[in-house]
Amino acid sequence: MARLIALFNPPDDPAAFDAHYRDVHTPIVRRYPNLRGLRLTRPDGVGGRAAPFHLMAEMSFDSRDDLEAALASDAGRESGRDLRNLATAGVSLFIVDDAAPDA
Amino acid sequence: MARLIALFNPPDDPAAFDAHYRDVHTPIVRRYPNLRGLRLTRPDGVGGRAAPFHLMAEMSFDSRDDLEAALASDAGRESGRDLRNLATAGVSLFIVDDAAPDA
Repeated sequence: MARLIALFNPPDDPAAFDAHYRDVHTPIVRRYPNLRGLRLTRPDGVGGRAAPFHLMAEMSFDSRDDLEAALASDAGRESGRDLRNLATAGVSLFIVDDAAPDA
Repeated sequence: MARLIALFNPPDDPAAFDAHYRDVHTPIVRRYPNLRGLRLTRPDGVGGRAAPFHLMAEMSFDSRDDLEAALASDAGRESGRDLRNLATAGVSLFIVDDAAPDA
């Protein structure tokens, strides 16, 4: 298993961000070839602190190869372009391999 | 299910960070009451960019209540104190609820 993870900084207009993510970005992500799961969660802060991110999107694949192929696909390139409109407050994007069992 | 997620910024001395995480911090985390899983992954960057984080630690619990109780426990407070020594380059800490199924 491999995950592509996007952590979105708090946007200036959360409602507009959420609408764009739901109505424009999600349909593109759903076209990733061999996408196995899309988990969306709303981070909360710890110990009374504000959450550092507005949204975490975890896109899972059976393998790192499948993930890389999705990024290189038409949908992958389109989502990258859409990210520039969506993530105006910034986004942290990274990949993790979940091949190893939990420690 | 609820997860406590820690994303560590790239440290000045990765080897010293990893040794501290493994030998000092992990044993404290393992004492969290009702900890169900500790998943450690090494983020990779996307599209040739450097990874924004050095380490992702995901600590999972059966419920948000269990997670909050772990943070309030002796081990939770001790891990918070140790974080100040460990995460000198910065850490993003947040909680997500995984109750909802994948979208």
